[in-house]
Amino acid sequence: MDFNIRKAVSNDMIHVYGMIKELAEFENMPNGPQIDEKKLIEDGFESENPIFKCFVAECTDSKIVVGYAIYFPIYSTWEGRALFLEDLYVKPEYRKHHIGLKLIKAVAKQALSENCKRLDLHVLSWNPAMKFYEKLNAVNLTKSEDWNFVRFGTDAIAKLAE
Amino acid sequence: MDFNIRKAVSNDMIHVYGMIKELAEFENMPNGPQIDEKKLIEDGFESENPIFKCFVAECTDSKIVVGYAIYFPIYSTWEGRALFLEDLYVKPEYRKHHIGLKLIKAVAKQALSENCKRLDLHVLSWNPAMKFYEKLNAVNLTKSEDWNFVRFGTDAIAKLAE
Repeated sequence: MDFNIRKAVSNDMIHVYGMIKELAEFENMPNGPQIDEKKLIEDGFESENPIFKCFVAECTDSKIVVGYAIYFPIYSTWEGRALFLEDLYVKPEYRKHHIGLKLIKAVAKQALSENCKRLDLHVLSWNPAMKFYEKLNAVNLTKSEDWNFVRFGTDAIAKLAE
Repeated sequence: MDFNIRKAVSNDMIHVYGMIKELAEFENMPNGPQIDEKKLIEDGFESENPIFKCFVAECTDSKIVVGYAIYFPIYSTWEGRALFLEDLYVKPEYRKHHIGLKLIKAVAKQALSENCKRLDLHVLSWNPAMKFYEKLNAVNLTKSEDWNFVRFGTDAIAKLAE
């Protein structure tokens, strides 16, 4: 089997949404996803300022979409423009074909072409992807520098905004 | 002394840049900042797609800028549009006036008005700001769910993009 990586189009979002739900299940958070494919199309393709970008991996022959990477621009007050990799996922039955590597390489090429000095992401510590990223020379800033990832959720935002 | 919060303009960036350097010193990373005020103006005000937004706190009488909050839009494949608070800083000599609270309230109001379900940020675990955020009902996802903050730096990106 051969696979190629291409920029996603809005028609891919139904498949990407299916994989977002699979990834949430893998992360033991099946009820995590609160949006749907329509919202993905709106936010990534139809909005005046699309907020995210997406690569998909497809089977060269069957054109089946078997993986995706969603990323968006962020900003560092130390190093300027950077990218954040929100999700990287390959369907279990298509693993061991280096598809994840191809997807993250596409994002890294994008980062390089946009002169980004950083590509950041979040990983659950028990996720085997952690080792995959470390092999590719990523640094775990939580371990090395004690950075914590902190969130104000909907209720906290509403209270703070009062 | 009285302070008010307003949206930053490009002329504020020289003061914001000075405070970015102060914050880096506080984080024991005085050589962290690799950009300058010109880059901040370019990326936040003169670009076709400004990448970050900024609130500043100013002394009502003297108009001296004494604090800032830099934030930008991010995206969650679970909850849609969200905001990320990159920096929140108040000059040491102006603390204890609730200026930090006023700044983060302005960002929370912005999040609410943009229908954002999350306001995320990173904090060093020894930074007293951690307690400030927790008091305001933020959740430390590194502690509660074991999320790690991971980075591909410039060299790792270049190697990956080969």
